[in-house]
Amino acid sequence: MFSFEPGGHSDDSDGPDGEAPRGERGPALPSTKRERTRALIRDVALRSFRERGYDATTIRRIAEEAGVSVGTTNYHFATKNHLVQELYLDVQESHADAAIGQLEGVRELTERLAIVYRTGLEQLEPYHPHAPEFLAAAVSPRSPINPLSEESAPALAVIRGLFERAVDGAKSPLPDEFKAGLPQVLVLSHLLLALLWVYDSSPGRERTHRILDRALNLLRMTLPLTRIPVVRAPLRELLALAGEVRA
Amino acid sequence: MFSFEPGGHSDDSDGPDGEAPRGERGPALPSTKRERTRALIRDVALRSFRERGYDATTIRRIAEEAGVSVGTTNYHFATKNHLVQELYLDVQESHADAAIGQLEGVRELTERLAIVYRTGLEQLEPYHPHAPEFLAAAVSPRSPINPLSEESAPALAVIRGLFERAVDGAKSPLPDEFKAGLPQVLVLSHLLLALLWVYDSSPGRERTHRILDRALNLLRMTLPLTRIPVVRAPLRELLALAGEVRA
Repeated sequence: MFSFEPGGHSDDSDGPDGEAPRGERGPALPSTKRERTRALIRDVALRSFRERGYDATTIRRIAEEAGVSVGTTNYHFATKNHLVQELYLDVQESHADAAIGQLEGVRELTERLAIVYRTGLEQLEPYHPHAPEFLAAAVSPRSPINPLSEESAPALAVIRGLFERAVDGAKSPLPDEFKAGLPQVLVLSHLLLALLWVYDSSPGRERTHRILDRALNLLRMTLPLTRIPVVRAPLRELLALAGEVRA
Repeated sequence: MFSFEPGGHSDDSDGPDGEAPRGERGPALPSTKRERTRALIRDVALRSFRERGYDATTIRRIAEEAGVSVGTTNYHFATKNHLVQELYLDVQESHADAAIGQLEGVRELTERLAIVYRTGLEQLEPYHPHAPEFLAAAVSPRSPINPLSEESAPALAVIRGLFERAVDGAKSPLPDEFKAGLPQVLVLSHLLLALLWVYDSSPGRERTHRILDRALNLLRMTLPLTRIPVVRAPLRELLALAGEVRA
C-alpha cells in the first residue's frame, strides 16, 4: 500500500535507462548523461527554492547555474511548477523516510501520529523563510502546485500512504468502523497544520508545536469516548464530513 | 458589543462633515464634495473588484472610471489594498444586516449559527468567479489584506460581533463555562468555510452548503454531550486550542 515511486527520481546512476523522461518532446539523449543532467537541474532547482524562494527562482536562472541551456532545462521540466512537484516529492519522501524509522516498535496511535506530524514539520522547516510565497502561489484551486491538484497527486499519495501506515500499525481503542475514514481526516489536518506553520513567526515554530501537542492530547482524550454508543453517531458524521471535503 | 462603525462609510450625504478622511495628507477639501468623491471612488472600486477581480483592478483604472485623477484617488485611498478593506467592510456589514433580521425570534443555537453562516455565503457569492485571485493575494501572513492582519481588524470585528450576538441570544444546552470561547471557534470555522467555498466548483456552491449542513448537524448532535462530565475535558482543550490559533 505504501511505496516510493522510483520513476523520475533516480539520481546520478550509471546504469542504462531506456525510459524517456516525463514530458519528452525530442529524440532520446544518451540515457546516462540525460539522467545526470536531469538530476543536476533538479538539485539546482531545489536548492534555489530553499535559498531564494518561489518568486525569485526562474527556469533561466536554474539553467545558468546548472550550466545547461534553457532548452535543455525545459526538455526535462516544462515549467517551474514541474520543478515544484519535484520539491514536493523530495520533501514527502524525506518525510516518509524519517517517520518510518521512528514508527518502529511504537504502537499507541497518538504517539504514532505525533511522529508523523513532527517529522513532517521538521522536513518543512528549511523552507519557512519563503513559505508565504509558496503558499500564495499554491493556494488557488486553479494552481498546478496546489497540494490537492491533479498534478500534486503523487506527492499527496506519499503522505496519505504514511498516515495509512501510522493507523494500520497502531493499537487503539478506535472501533474498526472508523479506521477507514481516519487517514483522510489526518491528511486534511496535516494540510491545516502546514498552514498554521506558515503563519507561525514564533522562535523555532514553538507555537505550531504547542498547537500540535494540544491537538494530539485532545485526540488522546477523545479516543476512549468513541466506545460510548452516543458518541458514535457524531463521529460517523465527522468522518463523512471529512470525506466530503476531499477535493 | 456589536456596532457598525460609521466613519469612512458615509455615502452621498449633504450634511457638513468636519472630519478628515483616513490617511489624509493634503489640505481639507470642502467636506460634502470630498465625501461624495470618496464614496464615488469606493463604489467604482467595489464594482471593479466584483466584475474584474483583484488582479485587473488598478488605482489608475478606478480613477479613470470615477473621472478623477490618480492623485485624488490616492488622497482618499493610499493603495488598492485600502480599497479591499472597504470591500471587506461592505461585505461584512451587509452580512450582519442580512443575518440580524433573520435571527429575530430564533432561539436554537445551531439554527442561529445556520443563519449566520448561510447569509455569509450569500454575501460572498457575487465574488466567487474571482475568489481564487483574492485568496492568492490575501493568504500570505505578510499580506495587508489577510483577514487576520491588523489592517483587516475592523472587518473581522464585525464578523466576530455577529457570532457573539448569535451565541448570546441562543438557548442551548452548552454549559456556561464554554460560551466565552465559542465565538473564536465559530469565526475560525467561518474562515475555513470561506476557504472551502473558494474551492467549490459545484453548481450554486451546493457542495459547500452540504458540508455546512453536515457540520451544523454534527454540532447539533454534539451539543447535548457537553453535559456529560467525561466530555468536558476534551471540549475545554478544544476551546483552548482555538484560542492558541488566534493570529
